[in-house]
Amino acid sequence: MIRHTTLFKWTAEATEEQQQAVAAELRAFAPTVPSIRSYLCGADAGLVEGNFDFAVIADFDDEAGYFAYRDHPVHREISARTVTPIMAQRTSVQFKY
Amino acid sequence: MIRHTTLFKWTAEATEEQQQAVAAELRAFAPTVPSIRSYLCGADAGLVEGNFDFAVIADFDDEAGYFAYRDHPVHREISARTVTPIMAQRTSVQFKY
Repeated sequence: MIRHTTLFKWTAEATEEQQQAVAAELRAFAPTVPSIRSYLCGADAGLVEGNFDFAVIADFDDEAGYFAYRDHPVHREISARTVTPIMAQRTSVQFKY
Repeated sequence: MIRHTTLFKWTAEATEEQQQAVAAELRAFAPTVPSIRSYLCGADAGLVEGNFDFAVIADFDDEAGYFAYRDHPVHREISARTVTPIMAQRTSVQFKY
């Protein structure tokens, strides 16, 4: 299995509505991707100072499954329309387990 | 449930042995923490340029469970001894699901 994790920091200007649109669009999209085994995303709970703002965690059987998600045209379109305009920083790791 | 996610970037000087020690120590520690519901950590698989190097993902029933893990003296000791010396950057998110 491969677990994909991405953490986002939004810009200071990002509105609540824009942030919620990212989560809503990704949650609607994920079930349409056959290679996704599990998918969770969510806004930081505000427990710790200095955190990033949003996390995406997805599981796949293999590398091909991950790339099918990453490069999916609908994923690209959602990212360009909802994520890119409010993204300040982004960190990612994919690890095998 | 609360999912805790932390991504680490190691220093350029971090040895393979030092990186593996972090994973080994955390994997031995996690089963001793009663509030942990699931725990996965692993080194970046090298699929994508520019990624961070290591991920930790843990699930808890609630905030108290997360803080019991975060503030556990053995966790603090492992972090200070194995993580801090090779840590260049660290990003975190805790989200409810």
